[in-house]
Amino acid sequence: RIDGARLWDSLMEMARIGPGLRGGNNRQTLTDADREGRDLFKRWCEEAGMRVGVDSMGNMFARLEGAEPDLDPVMMGSHLDTQPTGGKYDGVLGVLAGLEVVRSIRDRGLTPRRPIVVVNWTNEEGTRFAPAMLSSGVFAGVHTQDWAYAREDADGKRFGDELARIGYVGDEPVGQRKMHAMFELHIEQGPILEAEGRDIGVVTHGQGLSWTEVTVTGKESHTGSTPMPMRRNAGLGMARILEKVDEIAWSHKPHAVGAAGHIEVFPNSRNVIPGKAVFTVDFRSPELSVIEDMEARLRVEGQRIADEMELEIAFEKVGGFDPVPFDKSCVDAVRRAAEKLGFSHREIISGAGHDACWIARVAPTAMIMCPCVDGLSHNEDEEISRDWAAAGCDVLLHAVLETAEI
Amino acid sequence: RIDGARLWDSLMEMARIGPGLRGGNNRQTLTDADREGRDLFKRWCEEAGMRVGVDSMGNMFARLEGAEPDLDPVMMGSHLDTQPTGGKYDGVLGVLAGLEVVRSIRDRGLTPRRPIVVVNWTNEEGTRFAPAMLSSGVFAGVHTQDWAYAREDADGKRFGDELARIGYVGDEPVGQRKMHAMFELHIEQGPILEAEGRDIGVVTHGQGLSWTEVTVTGKESHTGSTPMPMRRNAGLGMARILEKVDEIAWSHKPHAVGAAGHIEVFPNSRNVIPGKAVFTVDFRSPELSVIEDMEARLRVEGQRIADEMELEIAFEKVGGFDPVPFDKSCVDAVRRAAEKLGFSHREIISGAGHDACWIARVAPTAMIMCPCVDGLSHNEDEEISRDWAAAGCDVLLHAVLETAEI
Ligand SMILES: NC(=O)NCCC(=O)O
Ligand SMILES: NC(=O)NCCC(=O)O
Repeated sequence: RIDGARLWDSLMEMARIGPGLRGGNNRQTLTDADREGRDLFKRWCEEAGMRVGVDSMGNMFARLEGAEPDLDPVMMGSHLDTQPTGGKYDGVLGVLAGLEVVRSIRDRGLTPRRPIVVVNWTNEEGTRFAPAMLSSGVFAGVHTQDWAYAREDADGKRFGDELARIGYVGDEPVGQRKMHAMFELHIEQGPILEAEGRDIGVVTHGQGLSWTEVTVTGKESHTGSTPMPMRRNAGLGMARILEKVDEIAWSHKPHAVGAAGHIEVFPNSRNVIPGKAVFTVDFRSPELSVIEDMEARLRVEGQRIADEMELEIAFEKVGGFDPVPFDKSCVDAVRRAAEKLGFSHREIISGAGHDACWIARVAPTAMIMCPCVDGLSHNEDEEISRDWAAAGCDVLLHAVLETAEI
Repeated sequence: RIDGARLWDSLMEMARIGPGLRGGNNRQTLTDADREGRDLFKRWCEEAGMRVGVDSMGNMFARLEGAEPDLDPVMMGSHLDTQPTGGKYDGVLGVLAGLEVVRSIRDRGLTPRRPIVVVNWTNEEGTRFAPAMLSSGVFAGVHTQDWAYAREDADGKRFGDELARIGYVGDEPVGQRKMHAMFELHIEQGPILEAEGRDIGVVTHGQGLSWTEVTVTGKESHTGSTPMPMRRNAGLGMARILEKVDEIAWSHKPHAVGAAGHIEVFPNSRNVIPGKAVFTVDFRSPELSVIEDMEARLRVEGQRIADEMELEIAFEKVGGFDPVPFDKSCVDAVRRAAEKLGFSHREIISGAGHDACWIARVAPTAMIMCPCVDGLSHNEDEEISRDWAAAGCDVLLHAVLETAEI
């Protein structure tokens, strides 16, 4: 078993970096706080006898040498970056549980046959730079590095420049590391495990995601002196499309979700009818056909609303991935570990996207989930219990021990 | 007649300060550009033989002495601040036409019996600091200066601090200047005069305004892993209320308008269901009872939508004024001037709020309107013809000559 108290202490120490306003975290990717978090993780890994390499996307790989160094390593990890008003566990648990697994192995003086690598993937959240899971995506060959470097944040700062600014452009070319398997422990971010009182989710699939940025263009004009029939109100057009997004997602109940988290109007002045509205629609489903149907209906309904209101509309897909099945033998290793340790468990589909969803395209991959209070995530009030964290980390330990052959 | 070319040159020279991105202006109140515009206006006024005083709200009063200096002066003016993506004429025409009137009077060596004062009112637009017409409102005793000084912009900067920063806290206590009458020339900002081919609008009333800031609170959560029935989506609640705002305004057709120009969601991240939405509803009508009805229905419908969606909602009135009738003898002076000069004219109600709407509470006041292309305003493409500007300024001249007794 791992040391639950040590894991928890490390989680709490990391949470002091980039504190939020209400007890959570704001450690967005490639900020000074992200650099500080990375530096701390690096120090901890070195203290635990690992060698830390960094690739050209800033992905960090901490390696515990195996008895047979030429064998492909077993990886564990997730991400240290957070939402602007994020929790202390989303991502962080998966990275620090990996560290705790290595610490526990070393405590017992064990040496795995295969090397073990703990990884921190850059910009998983996708808030500052869309899309989410950017650097695991480049690692997996889904995006090019040039394209990733050119992503811009809301202030027009580029990913590549900000990565250099915080000093985390590594000398390893991205995507070269081989791996035998990869395991990601993550909080569920949904309500199922807690509601059913299960300790562990054995993740069989990740649902797919589609992000469409919608730009509605009308005409800026005076809110007081422009007669109602002459208005071309882009904000009102957006409101009607947001209602449709909700309707489309519900129509596939319970196999889909949909919402817009990002919404802006221009010039955003109280007495100017919005001339432009930009917002990003997030649709998800475990079924590819459902995602495709929702995307298509968004375009049809959006165009119809725009035409009726004499607005212009443009759609751009700014992120997404298909539903992904995880590797059967890795999933079985997770299930066996949970059973061996006597934890209650169930199969589950991940509602969120994870780095594991991209890595599954290039290596055998699986995920372990632990419950979180009220299913709440992407919220500073995100919470888990120490026991849930420790149980998840124990399952990670045993799945990795089996796979790395100790 | 005034010198139309000189008026136009001054308009174009002022428009060089705080240029917009597409040919209009971004000279928002209490910015460096606003200071520059004020400095230029001050220089021009002094060159035209006027003495410039500034009050504690930054309102600027340029005075041409009368033959009987103890008589209350006749005022003309409007505002030099603009929207963030505003036009070159909204407000500016009224100030620089006042200057042109004085220049024309001086060209002819005339001295009015009453002093004549050209005024630039601070923060008419209300974009950076709500509410609109802030400083004419303090002048008229509608708001206190302390309250006005404490208004904050989106960055948390305070009106009082920014006024001091640009060096325009004058030594005159606000509201002390007496006036015999005040005239404001302004572009219509609506389509009526141009559509009917009229040169001049004789403004009989200003319609009333109500600004309500609505805050909808839900729960931030993950867009992927939060099941549809568990969502408390503040952005969707806002969308439903925006639809109601439109419906409420149309229900009073053609005597009301309504829209929201200011819209924000938090934390504004693509994969976070908005936990909070804040937006400002702008309702207007020439009839007070209609405004009251719209405000009341916004609260009832907003509360009903919030209750249905398990959201919280709060309403705060952040600006507004009742419909205002202008002074009959001042309005008659405008009509007589238009007739004498042979301009086609009609009575009109102002759709926008103007400094004249507040000043009408403390002095006999009237407004003159000239057409603008397509009724477009609060848009960088706002346009007027030189002839329209000159005609409006001629009417201002003659209304003022009569009232100041030359
Ligand atoms: N786990 C997580 O919150 N990932 C961010 C990407 C997503 O939106 O699903
Ligand atoms: N004239 C003008 O645009 N004033 C701004 C105040 C308003 O919104 O009516």
